[in-house]
Amino acid sequence: MTVVPITNGTAPKRESVPHPFDPLTKAEIEAAISVVSKAHGNVVFNVVSLQEPRKAEMTRWLESPSTAPAPARVADVVVIAPGGKVYDGLVDLKEGKITQWDLLDGLQPIITMEELQAVEHICRTDPKVIEQCKISGIAEEDMHKVYCDPWTIGYDERYGSKVRLQQGLMYYRPDVDDCQYQYPLDFCPIFDANKKEIIAIDIPKVRRPLRLEEPVNYTRPAVEKQGGYRTDLKPIHITQPEGVSFKITGREIEWQNWKFHIGFNYREGIVLNNITYNDKGTVRPIFYRLSLVEMVVPYGHPEHPHQRKHAFDLGEYGAGYMTNSLTLGCDCKGSIHYMDAEFPTTAGTIRTIKNAICIHEEDSGLLFKHTDFRDESVTVTRARKLIIQQIFTAANYEYAVQWIFHQDGTIQPEIKLTGILNTYSMLEGEDIGGWGTQVYPGVHAHNHQHLFSLRIDANVDGPKNTVFMVDAVPSDAPVGSPENFYGNAFYAKKTKFTTAKESMTDYNGATVRTWDISNENKLHPYSGKPASYKLISREVPGLLPKEGGLVWKRAGFARHAVHVTKYADDQLWPAGRHVPQTSGDSPAGTILEWIGDGSQNIENEDVVLWHTFGVVHFPAPEDFPVMPVEPITLILKPRNFFTNNPVMDVPPSYSVTPSQVKANAEGERLAVDTTSTLAAPESAACNGCS
Amino acid sequence: MTVVPITNGTAPKRESVPHPFDPLTKAEIEAAISVVSKAHGNVVFNVVSLQEPRKAEMTRWLESPSTAPAPARVADVVVIAPGGKVYDGLVDLKEGKITQWDLLDGLQPIITMEELQAVEHICRTDPKVIEQCKISGIAEEDMHKVYCDPWTIGYDERYGSKVRLQQGLMYYRPDVDDCQYQYPLDFCPIFDANKKEIIAIDIPKVRRPLRLEEPVNYTRPAVEKQGGYRTDLKPIHITQPEGVSFKITGREIEWQNWKFHIGFNYREGIVLNNITYNDKGTVRPIFYRLSLVEMVVPYGHPEHPHQRKHAFDLGEYGAGYMTNSLTLGCDCKGSIHYMDAEFPTTAGTIRTIKNAICIHEEDSGLLFKHTDFRDESVTVTRARKLIIQQIFTAANYEYAVQWIFHQDGTIQPEIKLTGILNTYSMLEGEDIGGWGTQVYPGVHAHNHQHLFSLRIDANVDGPKNTVFMVDAVPSDAPVGSPENFYGNAFYAKKTKFTTAKESMTDYNGATVRTWDISNENKLHPYSGKPASYKLISREVPGLLPKEGGLVWKRAGFARHAVHVTKYADDQLWPAGRHVPQTSGDSPAGTILEWIGDGSQNIENEDVVLWHTFGVVHFPAPEDFPVMPVEPITLILKPRNFFTNNPVMDVPPSYSVTPSQVKANAEGERLAVDTTSTLAAPESAACNGCS
Repeated sequence: MTVVPITNGTAPKRESVPHPFDPLTKAEIEAAISVVSKAHGNVVFNVVSLQEPRKAEMTRWLESPSTAPAPARVADVVVIAPGGKVYDGLVDLKEGKITQWDLLDGLQPIITMEELQAVEHICRTDPKVIEQCKISGIAEEDMHKVYCDPWTIGYDERYGSKVRLQQGLMYYRPDVDDCQYQYPLDFCPIFDANKKEIIAIDIPKVRRPLRLEEPVNYTRPAVEKQGGYRTDLKPIHITQPEGVSFKITGREIEWQNWKFHIGFNYREGIVLNNITYNDKGTVRPIFYRLSLVEMVVPYGHPEHPHQRKHAFDLGEYGAGYMTNSLTLGCDCKGSIHYMDAEFPTTAGTIRTIKNAICIHEEDSGLLFKHTDFRDESVTVTRARKLIIQQIFTAANYEYAVQWIFHQDGTIQPEIKLTGILNTYSMLEGEDIGGWGTQVYPGVHAHNHQHLFSLRIDANVDGPKNTVFMVDAVPSDAPVGSPENFYGNAFYAKKTKFTTAKESMTDYNGATVRTWDISNENKLHPYSGKPASYKLISREVPGLLPKEGGLVWKRAGFARHAVHVTKYADDQLWPAGRHVPQTSGDSPAGTILEWIGDGSQNIENEDVVLWHTFGVVHFPAPEDFPVMPVEPITLILKPRNFFTNNPVMDVPPSYSVTPSQVKANAEGERLAVDTTSTLAAPESAACNGCS
Repeated sequence: MTVVPITNGTAPKRESVPHPFDPLTKAEIEAAISVVSKAHGNVVFNVVSLQEPRKAEMTRWLESPSTAPAPARVADVVVIAPGGKVYDGLVDLKEGKITQWDLLDGLQPIITMEELQAVEHICRTDPKVIEQCKISGIAEEDMHKVYCDPWTIGYDERYGSKVRLQQGLMYYRPDVDDCQYQYPLDFCPIFDANKKEIIAIDIPKVRRPLRLEEPVNYTRPAVEKQGGYRTDLKPIHITQPEGVSFKITGREIEWQNWKFHIGFNYREGIVLNNITYNDKGTVRPIFYRLSLVEMVVPYGHPEHPHQRKHAFDLGEYGAGYMTNSLTLGCDCKGSIHYMDAEFPTTAGTIRTIKNAICIHEEDSGLLFKHTDFRDESVTVTRARKLIIQQIFTAANYEYAVQWIFHQDGTIQPEIKLTGILNTYSMLEGEDIGGWGTQVYPGVHAHNHQHLFSLRIDANVDGPKNTVFMVDAVPSDAPVGSPENFYGNAFYAKKTKFTTAKESMTDYNGATVRTWDISNENKLHPYSGKPASYKLISREVPGLLPKEGGLVWKRAGFARHAVHVTKYADDQLWPAGRHVPQTSGDSPAGTILEWIGDGSQNIENEDVVLWHTFGVVHFPAPEDFPVMPVEPITLILKPRNFFTNNPVMDVPPSYSVTPSQVKANAEGERLAVDTTSTLAAPESAACNGCS
């Protein structure tokens, strides 16, 4: 980020020229809003976000930032005009003018937090809702105890996509501090976001009145009743008295040979761009762009209208819009660097999320160790990792998304699922089949999946990459044959993807299938194999909703573990740019369209790998009333990329060579942690004595 | 551990009565050795280890340790008498007498470190080896630069099992501080451990002379040559000023409701016994015994004699015998408690491994979090974990075995693989097929698997347990049918194992298969499902060596991901008690014998689940000359076991309720970490400014 000191009437002021990957600054968002407001009057701002630079232009700039022209700063704008008319627009920020303005037909843009916030109040005063609450057993004067989690409606064939809708998942709180997910109601209002009214209510055939069981909570009064908080956890302090090992310039971070840009948008949250590794002086590109681009959470209960519960949390609400403001010593521990996020409000002002991203290092245990059994000569070296984190709240659930960088060139996205189960009401003794679990009396938590789409815009030693599927398989030669006499021969069977169609592949646990993103133009000097990053992902369930069904149609990206496409600007979000209320009947704007007939060449091309991974969650009472973190992770690991182990120069905790052992000499204690101590003497003394 | 103060002639002295699960004390090992020596003269001590208490007797004692008789302390002894005669014996330590003494026929006991140490010297002076070294290009005066890693021979049909053998993997070091795995030699001497001589040498058809390429090392001189150690890693200090949160009495540990006994033996290393969880005052048993019991590392190169490289590291060398002495601030960081290990030497003295086990806590990120999107009321609670660790060196490789306990009832065994690849020589330009990788010029690292056997002696709410296989599958009902109109129905398909034969099952990645260990006599009050621990394991490759081949025959346990057997005393090690030189032609003493025709009932029985998991390793240059840690993990997770989330009483970092938000009141800051800081101000200040 270059600094341009500018002078206004009063005093010299510093202002910065954003890096082309930087999110729009507050001033840029304001400028875009002003341009649009001037041209189109009183509109609801849905999105004002960076249109990312065109890759060709950006690549030229990255190659020579001092001479190539900086890509234009362009605001990607979505507004809803009176009458519910949705416009997609682009604003050139330098020129201060709208360069594109399109009226959309039958597409609904993302649902903002403000739209979500509006529904509950309207529900509480709607006569039809009040009537249903009465049927549930709630008196009209208790309507303030009725809560509504507004959800995207997904897709409902009765309403289509021209009317902007939300569905209201209804709950009750006996006390304002109770957890409403314990008290689900059985009906589901449909909210028209333009009219701001309830236009219908879905009422189940079997009614399930509110059950006022004893509340179970995790707040202090509830815990006190159960005996109070435990008192036997002693603090752990994590400190970095000499500061952190990373360096941040603007939004670019450098750490342990890594360098990349940390972006953030309303949709994906954290976006990492231009990820490179300084390999002994040579800066080698690895990924042009890395982010979570979509997810879908299909619920497995066939009763109407539960099929509508399959939120595309990124495409329908936005991981950026829903992100938490993080707190030092709570969400993150140690020595932390934060970055804020700025978004427009629907009214065209600015909403700042303080500490939207946290960045810190952690000790990561052993990096490598070897002892020679002959003489106990040994080297032991500890590892460090860098974590870029955000946490977002999607109604009941939270997702802590961590991008973990390891010193050895491995990148590890990890998502920690926590928060609260989505719940539905059940009658006492009701047979709920196999579609869910009674996690508390009267609380039915449905089976569900969390399927994430990781978009890997590969740049492994340059833009021309090829993807291979790799399976561990035995030799074909039978036991007893000269080629495999003892039957022990096995190898990595590699299947090259030459077209997008070939790349549409599923996981195979038995062959511990992986996928290599390779640069066939860069063969390793020793192994002769192409410089590669290997995708190792082990939580890869199939899409459980069936072929031809609603979720299968809408979540085309989730039909396979891997799809590979040729890069094209603006092909970022595989379920589409505007996801709410899509039926899935048309592939327009989704990965299905981008793949088309699948004949596009992806061999030795600028390719994007789309990876679907996730968990299947069959709820249990342990998950209620709040769920202990369930982590899911995968790794991208360099193979045949580095000349050899790239972390040999990390100072060892201790290293003693055979000749030092022989000479009875002291080894190298370059990074022994001298603050470590023996555990409390009384416990140490216990060992074998009392 | 009860303390019995005893008085000798001079001064009062404290001595302890061991817990029945405790490893033999130094005094007990000495006593056993003395009894055996008296009876059998000059023998080589191979094993003197605790014979674990019979379960029925031990269970009675655990139920009332103050009244039930303590199980007898018995030493399990293996010796090799002159002439290579192998004896299995038992010594009753109270009585001081041998209660069993059996001459074995055609069985070879574990190879001790001392036996391994003996081979290299003999190789260096053996004329046949010297001759082969000359052919490799090594002058006789350089024989001190020739190194030998003695390995179990596995099984070689030419020699059978009556002669005690090792095979020598040969290497060269240009300099004493070079890494010999870079300089493999192409021939393989066979060592007779009783005669202490080389009886044969396997010589490949194609000779591959020593290649003296530039050394690549990770010790200081090599790193200095490459520019020295990196200097940009700032220290991270981890301290517990108020002490640790665990309490150790003897070898029993209590932490966060967990309580268990930490044993250790020559074979498995760490053994955890009687694992219980204090569930709000009720001590609930979960596992009677948990340990790694076997592993096999088959190499995938079909050329003779590489088929013999498939070490059963536990059964053939012992994870205890090979374990490292750990160092504060190197292997373990923070506030550490250590336990030593004591073993006999072959000569009948005592070998103490100081700090064989390390025990410490770590901060573990989020435990749970939820924010209400309405008002930002939030609870965020951080997690802690407890780690019981050992690291063992198996010739070139190291394995860091961690037993991680989480507060929520989850147990997570994790193994970190590091150390050095096993290597073989190759000619310049040699076609090595797909069986391995040239990781450095002249260095051929063969494909291999690391397959571990985890033995789970279940005790989930009591000894009578049943195992289910669980697959996530769609409803059978087609899309459009009334039962599954939208196609979204899916459920957990459970398959109950009633016989051992039914339990022999493989992994299925597509259905994210898990296995439940359930107590069908304890149904959850809410879910109606049995109290269970779920085995979630995602790195479960099939055994790649083919059916009918050598490894397949010897590693019966590795043919399936899961086997379940009815508990029987002494059925601990699935490849047999004496593993070296077994052919696999007979199932005697292995899990195959224990399963027999597979008809044994395992429903609602005292069952043991044997789980095979592991990695397939296709080497890459990044793994050389020393391999950055490759972790593999799995979890055992309570499902329908606890009434609800068992960690709600962990003090939150911060918790503010809706009513506190409304009243603008401060929330609960019960465990905010006040030592966390903002990252170095200069980097913080950078954000958005320069």
